[in-house]
Amino acid sequence: MKCDILVAGAGLAGCTAARLLAEQGQKVLVLEKRKDIAGNCHDFRDENGITVHRYGPHIFHTNNKAVWDFVNRFTPFLPFQHKVLAYAEGRLIPFPINRDTICDVFGVNIPVTEVRSFLANEVAASTFHVPSQNFRDAVVSQVGERLYDLFFKNYTRKQWDTDPENLSAEVASRIPVRENRDPRYFSDKYQGIPKLGYTGMMANMLDHPGITVMTNADFFELRDGIERTLTVYTGKLDEYFGRRHGELNYRSVRFEFETVDETRHQEVSVVNYPNDYDYTRITEFKHFTGEKSDRTTLCREYPSAEGDPCYIVMTKDNLEKRQRYLADIEQASGKEPSLFLGRLAEYRYYNMDQVIEAVFLKLDGPG
Amino acid sequence: MKCDILVAGAGLAGCTAARLLAEQGQKVLVLEKRKDIAGNCHDFRDENGITVHRYGPHIFHTNNKAVWDFVNRFTPFLPFQHKVLAYAEGRLIPFPINRDTICDVFGVNIPVTEVRSFLANEVAASTFHVPSQNFRDAVVSQVGERLYDLFFKNYTRKQWDTDPENLSAEVASRIPVRENRDPRYFSDKYQGIPKLGYTGMMANMLDHPGITVMTNADFFELRDGIERTLTVYTGKLDEYFGRRHGELNYRSVRFEFETVDETRHQEVSVVNYPNDYDYTRITEFKHFTGEKSDRTTLCREYPSAEGDPCYIVMTKDNLEKRQRYLADIEQASGKEPSLFLGRLAEYRYYNMDQVIEAVFLKLDGPG
Repeated sequence: MKCDILVAGAGLAGCTAARLLAEQGQKVLVLEKRKDIAGNCHDFRDENGITVHRYGPHIFHTNNKAVWDFVNRFTPFLPFQHKVLAYAEGRLIPFPINRDTICDVFGVNIPVTEVRSFLANEVAASTFHVPSQNFRDAVVSQVGERLYDLFFKNYTRKQWDTDPENLSAEVASRIPVRENRDPRYFSDKYQGIPKLGYTGMMANMLDHPGITVMTNADFFELRDGIERTLTVYTGKLDEYFGRRHGELNYRSVRFEFETVDETRHQEVSVVNYPNDYDYTRITEFKHFTGEKSDRTTLCREYPSAEGDPCYIVMTKDNLEKRQRYLADIEQASGKEPSLFLGRLAEYRYYNMDQVIEAVFLKLDGPG
Repeated sequence: MKCDILVAGAGLAGCTAARLLAEQGQKVLVLEKRKDIAGNCHDFRDENGITVHRYGPHIFHTNNKAVWDFVNRFTPFLPFQHKVLAYAEGRLIPFPINRDTICDVFGVNIPVTEVRSFLANEVAASTFHVPSQNFRDAVVSQVGERLYDLFFKNYTRKQWDTDPENLSAEVASRIPVRENRDPRYFSDKYQGIPKLGYTGMMANMLDHPGITVMTNADFFELRDGIERTLTVYTGKLDEYFGRRHGELNYRSVRFEFETVDETRHQEVSVVNYPNDYDYTRITEFKHFTGEKSDRTTLCREYPSAEGDPCYIVMTKDNLEKRQRYLADIEQASGKEPSLFLGRLAEYRYYNMDQVIEAVFLKLDGPG
């Protein structure tokens, strides 16, 4: 088989790269290991007509107009401003922390102009190390012990299965605190949900005369039989190099879906459960699209060490291995021209817009 | 008749023990005196499609993950966070006492950080003995006279048919007071209502090839004809020994059920009536499950000296008798190997999860 560019992976990085390269006149072959495209953004309509995100809630948000214009070429977007409530002390409280969170938690009534001094007093009354030695110190030094205990301590335990004292301070280098009443989870200029779904959006990205897509197709099995001038690799970084420096760990999530006989289950699309139960959050998908049904589909998330990769694990060990693999890329580029793009191949945390932005940079995209 | 283990009683203790033993390879025979299983947790669907708890409201709550995982093997749980309001001074007030209770009762507006000093002032302005000589002293020394009079004094009179001055201070050794705004009755990590009902859950526990169940079957009538190597007894402690040291008293409740033509009767599942009427509380069952009906089923509880045992009575006399019976168990264990498990057989107050936990401990259960 022959092409100009072989793209391994039909997630957001692979689809964006394939599209840009095809529009630059290249013949692109995309191989996807799974049966479906769109990677962890994959969504589908279930039997109740509700669009379900197979790997947890994805809300598109960006401040980058070039990125926003690019994705809007492939699907219209429903305006959607994401709000999250945290279930704590038996009630639903706005999160991330803003003036209303503080009034609710502390039973006070303060104007937005006093948020900063209120938190400063909370911090002054708390105990922590300076400089921060771990995640707990980093959060407590920003919001004080009571808010840390309520929103961060147990959530972090669930998410990472370890005490916050064992996590590095950098993870919490800046906790978003709003000194106003803005209840939104993101404050980006552009926010929305693709009307055709992420799967529809990416199918349209791949719909170009220069692009051929194969699903259920493993890059490692097929690569030797495919002649090409460049490989765009979006799979796991360590796997490309046969795990020669050891495995790069991921945190995964078990997604438990349930459809219930209620028209509406919760006030907002995502409710976090920092302290209660074993799940970290419940998503009610209907909120994203306004789809109508007598039933509603929910997803509970249970963080787990096993399963599809969701989050990189920022331990010293993993970050050191990552450096060794990145050095291998440099070395290998002479004999096999290749680009490593996206969350898995770069082993870093990216929001969706950051993935696209990174591909633009490497492939001379718009903007 | 022949078995390995004879279990007397198909309540929560008996069902848990039967299941653990059957899974350990034992042949278990369960005898239940009543016509139904599930003991005082028994529930059923009434003619309006509403699940009614025959012996008053039961909400499952635990911090023990092994217990939570165990019960979840036999039924899914509906997430349910129990909230109670107390009807007092003509309005519904959050109970147990938290910051919002104080603001409501006293007509003040204080932050959560001032709850402690506010109560300290209340206590300082009150009259009581130190150390506490009785229930009244114990409560007043924690929350002051006004909150005691409003929420504890008359409720206790209804519940125990005696003045709080006649009850021991230990009963109120720690009154739950929340120095935050948490309106929940329990603060356990795991809380819920069994989707299949407690009866369904326990029927599934007993559904094992190693377990045989007989209802309407009296242990005392049948025991001589049953060959076994061990008896697990979950009935009344004094009855096992022919009441030789005298009767152990129980407080009972008369449950008055009524179905009314309203879709919703009250804001929350349970409203306490500390001061008004003769009942202690009204339960509206539909809240537990979200079951839909044009009608709703209520239960009013009238504490009583006569009837099915509900609560042990912690008088000096009863506790001394209990000690004598427990010594008898030691003595008898030589000639008839037996385990005494659960509320009745141990003559102690247990929440549901504590019953399971105690059985786990004695029978090498999980966790």
